Amino acid sequence: MNKRVGNQTIKTDSKPRIISTYSVVGPKEGEGPLKDYFDRILQDDLNGMDTYEKAESSMLYMAVTESIKKANLKEEDINYLVAGDLLNQLTSSCFAAKDVNIPFVGLFGACSTMTESLGVAAMLMDGGFANYAVAATSSHFSSAERQFRFPLEYGSQRPPTAQWTVTGSGAMVLGKEGNYPYVSYVTIGKVKDYGVNDVNNMGEAMAPAAVSTISQHLIDTGRKAEDYDLIVTGDLGKFGKEITMKLLLEEYNYDLSKNYIDCGEEIFDNERQNTNAGGSGCGCSAVVDCGYIYKNMISGKLKKVLLVSTGALLSSTSCYQGLNIPGVAHAVAVEI
Amino acid sequence: MNKRVGNQTIKTDSKPRIISTYSVVGPKEGEGPLKDYFDRILQDDLNGMDTYEKAESSMLYMAVTESIKKANLKEEDINYLVAGDLLNQLTSSCFAAKDVNIPFVGLFGACSTMTESLGVAAMLMDGGFANYAVAATSSHFSSAERQFRFPLEYGSQRPPTAQWTVTGSGAMVLGKEGNYPYVSYVTIGKVKDYGVNDVNNMGEAMAPAAVSTISQHLIDTGRKAEDYDLIVTGDLGKFGKEITMKLLLEEYNYDLSKNYIDCGEEIFDNERQNTNAGGSGCGCSAVVDCGYIYKNMISGKLKKVLLVSTGALLSSTSCYQGLNIPGVAHAVAVEI
Repeated sequence: MNKRVGNQTIKTDSKPRIISTYSVVGPKEGEGPLKDYFDRILQDDLNGMDTYEKAESSMLYMAVTESIKKANLKEEDINYLVAGDLLNQLTSSCFAAKDVNIPFVGLFGACSTMTESLGVAAMLMDGGFANYAVAATSSHFSSAERQFRFPLEYGSQRPPTAQWTVTGSGAMVLGKEGNYPYVSYVTIGKVKDYGVNDVNNMGEAMAPAAVSTISQHLIDTGRKAEDYDLIVTGDLGKFGKEITMKLLLEEYNYDLSKNYIDCGEEIFDNERQNTNAGGSGCGCSAVVDCGYIYKNMISGKLKKVLLVSTGALLSSTSCYQGLNIPGVAHAVAVEI
Repeated sequence: MNKRVGNQTIKTDSKPRIISTYSVVGPKEGEGPLKDYFDRILQDDLNGMDTYEKAESSMLYMAVTESIKKANLKEEDINYLVAGDLLNQLTSSCFAAKDVNIPFVGLFGACSTMTESLGVAAMLMDGGFANYAVAATSSHFSSAERQFRFPLEYGSQRPPTAQWTVTGSGAMVLGKEGNYPYVSYVTIGKVKDYGVNDVNNMGEAMAPAAVSTISQHLIDTGRKAEDYDLIVTGDLGKFGKEITMKLLLEEYNYDLSKNYIDCGEEIFDNERQNTNAGGSGCGCSAVVDCGYIYKNMISGKLKKVLLVSTGALLSSTSCYQGLNIPGVAHAVAVEI
């Protein structure tokens, strides 16, 4: 059976359901506009650990195990943990995976990881390879800052285009049955490089990838932008979102002015919380999708959404060597 | 259709074929015992680039594009590039992916990446999500040494258990038709941590994962070890291989003494080439599987093999923070 639709999209046959989600965030995210949608707000962003990396991993472990509990399942019921994060060699995911008794598919898509893991997990479900699978990711402001940018102690100044890495983790459990939101289409993205090399302007670096994946998804499925109650990009922030809207309108004539939000713009009150262009990090779209979006689908407020997490594919090595920052975006349509 | 077999294994229905492979190695690998099986031996391990990271990425690009050419296909025919590597944030894979026009699924499994990417690509094929997919990975001695251990200029001494990261990249093109070796079973591994924390003894760190995945694969499929012409672990090296054989015999009564090789032990002549316990790195099992194993299957010398790449899930951060080195192994059965 061929499930391909157009050039770059697949349509699921069995409609893998998202039967539960769990989101955990740090204190700052817990003071933001979406605070009521998260399952757990940590009072201490170290979560009782002695390093930020261990804290991040412990949050991912919490999201995975709690999402499984919420689905009334046990670890042994889950056939795959599909997860990744921003840390070198997926430190957060690998060390969470070692503490759960679940076969582990490690993924890397930078901040696109939530929809990459959800898309791959949905395909593993739909292909008949899994009865249950968990898709998850995490990020932490303090582990990301010191890995990618500056030691926290520098107190370096942040330009207006800079974003604030979200401290948080989200996990989704996929199953086969029940009246839950289901994955209908998956569009895996191509890597796009438009010459941006400013590590303080990730939104601009990722916008072309978001434009490529959203437009290709709409072309492949024959859907219009307005067919979705909401199109939700990952963490483009204020400026990346503006570029994405402008390019989609000018290049493809898709008008997203009425039904488009960006998780990076939603998660913080940028003015009050001093987060400049908005949130970023794998955890950003993870906790917004697992929290705000999922809960609004369960309550019936949203019926058809397109989740499009976006990743900036840089490493400190590639930056030091003067390379550009390519972007990638993966789209997953979720309906109920 | 449920394709699950036992606890942890899936059986493909459509038998995704490996219709071509390409392997490229550095000069040192080109002087080793398997030199006649590689498609390309570089004379210069920088491959004309100005950094080792760019060199590694250029080798991965070469393996991907040349494997597609060998299959008489074009980039547009390929639905997914499933690839990863050892470098922080998959620098090698991401920068190769930006230069090909193929949707990109970035994976991380450390040195288990060849069978992780092959297993995931085979499932994407078998699930009806792809007509063609490429699975690929790479590593480079010089980019790995300076990222994980010491600056090359130190000339640090290497203990007997140390391994030598392979400079090389391998890619496999999967298709639906033809009399080629095909993927019959995939066993995705669980992460195993047995308390090893010596970065110069990766074989010992990975052996428990190899034991777990091989034994589970044989239990799930009901096969005996001797049903395979060859069981091929990734890069356990001399000591890791010994531990694996011993544990499989003592714990599970599987005798691998007659049909088991390790890519890390095969790729170098350790005494002559001063490579201590053998080769390692994602590229190790990639070039041995794409070169030696695949060509011996095409010629009919091998008919049924179990590929088991093995990964040590460490980062320099996790080591500095005193954490153990968990391991993971993924098994893919290939038959003709």
